[in-house]
Amino acid sequence: MMKRLLLLSSLLLSVAHGAPVEKTVTYEQGGVTLEGFHVYDDATSGKRPSVLVIHQWTGPGNYEKGRARQLAELGYNVFVADIYGQGVRPVPPESGKEAGKYKSDRKLFRARLDAALEQLKKDERTDGSKIAAIGYCFGGTGVLELARSGADIAGVVSFHGGLASTPGFAAEKGKVGAKVLVLHGAIDPHVKPEEVAGFEKEFNEAEADWQLTAYSGAVHSFTQKMAGDDPSKGSAYNAKADARSWEAMKVFFAEIFK
Amino acid sequence: MMKRLLLLSSLLLSVAHGAPVEKTVTYEQGGVTLEGFHVYDDATSGKRPSVLVIHQWTGPGNYEKGRARQLAELGYNVFVADIYGQGVRPVPPESGKEAGKYKSDRKLFRARLDAALEQLKKDERTDGSKIAAIGYCFGGTGVLELARSGADIAGVVSFHGGLASTPGFAAEKGKVGAKVLVLHGAIDPHVKPEEVAGFEKEFNEAEADWQLTAYSGAVHSFTQKMAGDDPSKGSAYNAKADARSWEAMKVFFAEIFK
Repeated sequence: MMKRLLLLSSLLLSVAHGAPVEKTVTYEQGGVTLEGFHVYDDATSGKRPSVLVIHQWTGPGNYEKGRARQLAELGYNVFVADIYGQGVRPVPPESGKEAGKYKSDRKLFRARLDAALEQLKKDERTDGSKIAAIGYCFGGTGVLELARSGADIAGVVSFHGGLASTPGFAAEKGKVGAKVLVLHGAIDPHVKPEEVAGFEKEFNEAEADWQLTAYSGAVHSFTQKMAGDDPSKGSAYNAKADARSWEAMKVFFAEIFK
Repeated sequence: MMKRLLLLSSLLLSVAHGAPVEKTVTYEQGGVTLEGFHVYDDATSGKRPSVLVIHQWTGPGNYEKGRARQLAELGYNVFVADIYGQGVRPVPPESGKEAGKYKSDRKLFRARLDAALEQLKKDERTDGSKIAAIGYCFGGTGVLELARSGADIAGVVSFHGGLASTPGFAAEKGKVGAKVLVLHGAIDPHVKPEEVAGFEKEFNEAEADWQLTAYSGAVHSFTQKMAGDDPSKGSAYNAKADARSWEAMKVFFAEIFK
C-alpha cells in the first residue's frame, strides 16, 4: 500500500515536471565578469524555494550543472555561482592556487558569494524566504563563509568542505541566521578531526544551529565520481556517502523550506 | 501539487492503518523472567520490517511504549525489550546502579539483548531480513553492543547512547554486519568528544558501516521531554534534535529495509 502510493506520487510528480531550462548568465563583481548557470523547471510557474550552488576548486563545470539539474528536478530554482571569473576554469594543480586566493582572502570570497546570491535573489522565481546554498569541497567552504557572513538565507549544506575560518572572519555570536548542515567524510585526510572540532567550537560560540554528519569510510570528494575509487589517495568517490548525503540534504531542505 | 499529493498520501496511509495492537509479553533469560511489550498494526497482514526498542536506564516504560506505537504506526512490527527483569523499574539514582550492572557486564548485557531479539525474530510478523534495533541512553549503548556482538540484523540506531566499549568486548574487524547510525548531542557532557573519537576509531578498525550525526545545542536525553529544558543540567529535551533524529532514523530505515 505504502509502496504503491509512493510510486503513484513519483509518477505524478514526474509528469508535473518538464525538462529543466538551462541558461548561462553573466554578471559582475568588482569589475570582474562572472559566468554562472541558471536552471529551473518551466512547467511550474511562480516563486519557489531556491538553491545557490557553489563550485569546487576547478570552477563551475559539468559536475555543478549536473547537481543543478538534479535540484531543478526536485522543484527548486537553481543558480550555479562563479567565484573565479568568466573563463577561469583551472585544472589541478592550478585549481589549488586559484581556490587558495579566495580561501586566504575571505573578504573577496564573501563579495563573490554575495554577488552570486544577489543573482539568485533577483530572479522572479525566487521565494526570498526560502533560499539555501550548497557547495562541494571549495564550495563547501564557501557556503560556511556565507553562513559566517550572516547572509539572509534559510540554510547551507557543505559537502566535504574545508571547515576552518581565518582570523577576523570567524562566525560571531548571534550573527549566523542560516541553519548549517555539514556532511563530512569520517576519514577525510584534508579535513582532520582538529578542523571538525574547531568548526564545532566556532559555531557553538556563535550559537548557530548546526548539524554535522560523518560518514564511515569516506575521504575527501566522496560525492565525485571523477575522484576515482581509491580512498588511500585521500580523495575518492563513495557511493554510499554520496547517496546518504544527498538524502540528508533533501531532509534538511524539507525542514528549512517548511 | 507536491503538497497536495503528500496530503493525499498521508490521508490514505492513515486510513490504511488501524489502532496498534499492544501486548505485554513475558519471556526468560538465564532463569530470570523478563517483561517486554509487543506493538503492531493488525490492519496489515504478513511479514514486515521489524524494530527492537531498547529502553533507557529506568527500564521499559511509557516512553518506550510511546516510541513503539509511533513505529507501529509507520508500519513496523515492534518489540520493546526488557533488559532488567519483570518488575525491575528503578528510578534515579537507583537506575544508574541497575544500568551499571549491564554496562560493566557486557556478557550479561548481550545475553539479555539476544533474548529480546529472539522474541522479535520468532514472531510471525517479523521479516527476518529486515530487523533493526533502536535505543535511548542506556539502550543506545545496548544497540551498539548488539552491533558489536555481530547480531544478524540490518541496522541499529543509537539515540544519545554511551559509545564506549569495555575490554574484551570491542567491535572486531569484519564482525559488525549491522549498519550503525549514532545520533548524538554535540554538547552532551555524558558522552564527551573523546568517547566519540573512541567510537569512531573502534568502528573504523572493525570496518563497520557507520554514520554519526551531532546536533548543536543538544545535551544528553535530547529526545526526552521528562528531562526538562535546562541544558546546563547535562540532560534536557531539545525539540529540534528530537525531530531531526527521528527523521534521520526514518531515512536510515528506508535505506536498510530497501
